[in-house]
Amino acid sequence: MVRSAESAAMLLVGNELLSGKTADENLLALAKTLRALGVDLRSAVFVKDDPEAIAREVVRLRADHDVVFTSGGVGPTHDDVTVEAVARAFDVELVAHPDLALMLESAFGPENRSGYSRMTLVPRGAELLLGSGVTWPTIVLGNVWMLPGVPEIFRMKLAVVREHIVGPVRFFTKLAYTRLDETELKASLDAIVLAFPTIEVGSYPKRFDQGYRTQVTFDGKDAPTVERALAAFCATLPEGALERTE
Amino acid sequence: MVRSAESAAMLLVGNELLSGKTADENLLALAKTLRALGVDLRSAVFVKDDPEAIAREVVRLRADHDVVFTSGGVGPTHDDVTVEAVARAFDVELVAHPDLALMLESAFGPENRSGYSRMTLVPRGAELLLGSGVTWPTIVLGNVWMLPGVPEIFRMKLAVVREHIVGPVRFFTKLAYTRLDETELKASLDAIVLAFPTIEVGSYPKRFDQGYRTQVTFDGKDAPTVERALAAFCATLPEGALERTE
Repeated sequence: MVRSAESAAMLLVGNELLSGKTADENLLALAKTLRALGVDLRSAVFVKDDPEAIAREVVRLRADHDVVFTSGGVGPTHDDVTVEAVARAFDVELVAHPDLALMLESAFGPENRSGYSRMTLVPRGAELLLGSGVTWPTIVLGNVWMLPGVPEIFRMKLAVVREHIVGPVRFFTKLAYTRLDETELKASLDAIVLAFPTIEVGSYPKRFDQGYRTQVTFDGKDAPTVERALAAFCATLPEGALERTE
Repeated sequence: MVRSAESAAMLLVGNELLSGKTADENLLALAKTLRALGVDLRSAVFVKDDPEAIAREVVRLRADHDVVFTSGGVGPTHDDVTVEAVARAFDVELVAHPDLALMLESAFGPENRSGYSRMTLVPRGAELLLGSGVTWPTIVLGNVWMLPGVPEIFRMKLAVVREHIVGPVRFFTKLAYTRLDETELKASLDAIVLAFPTIEVGSYPKRFDQGYRTQVTFDGKDAPTVERALAAFCATLPEGALERTE
């Protein structure tokens, strides 16, 4: 069943992400996926492997957004506490899921059961979602999706997100690369922001690039309006100030 | 004046970070810097260029942490709203700072004033901090530091953080790279977690690496205890399971 969602939040769990040991890759991957689906990712929160902090954020984020994706903390070891924290956030108990128990036993062997027993548990009421080419289920409880932290597996599981979630309308983006800095562009930007209230205009200085100095982005839900905003912006620039558009 | 801080949070501001246009680099850079200073980065929050969302997070994060670092939204254009949002979070007004006005005028020229006028404003009561080799000031209000979003400039400004903030005690880290997966390591990990309550033990599977399968990390404030936890863990492993330690 495809669920529609307008707004989303992400909760990234892991001491290693906040101690500088590991660079996160999953926020960007999810952000791109949701953007392509037309779902608005409004917030992302990084917390440590602390069940209380995770549960608190799940309560807060799921109240404010249509869907919440967690990343990390779904493995078999002592520092994998996301699933129990989500159960706590929903005030339900953890129960062994028979399908997961079977899958884990066939993957790791029954003699290894104590090693993976934690991974058989789900919050009561959770469902397991599969996608084409994704044979390991994703645990979903209400509007909370529990995704893994390992980037390769996280990216694989995005296929399940793409198959099960759809946003209201996709965004169109156009870009202008200019040779001016932001202080020189401010008047042009202000005029376009005023003239095109439905377009989100962003400006991003690139300090040490030879080709351009500021990238200006135009995002909107109506493609012709985005094109018109770009054209209007370019028309305000002095000769030679535009490097290229995309 | 050096300020001591035990806990920290980071607030990353920018539509581009949540729309998948830009990969953040600043969280990792700040995390490493704080780790080296012995300051515990407990949370990081990404929000859009929305003054209300930024102000709400500033209020929340600064109440729960000794120091808060914002990243992004301090430039001259319409989407640079962090400074005014911090002012709102503190319920103070924005005022032009004479030092900033002078610096901006000498950098960009008086004829360009309307382009950078937004950057002369600071929340009332804010101070400007400099560091050796960092000639552009960082705006600090109470326990909130406003850092830029452009990664090259952000990293430069970390010198100011290093000079002005110190944590209570530094962390020592040891690493073990094993050829076992997490389910096979679980018993060893549980034993070490139990035997060394002051050591933070992390385990991180590397799925597609040839050299090892799980990295196990040992963090603590007392170096000899960290060493003992590592040695005790290694002693639990079967022959050939340890690839190397670091």
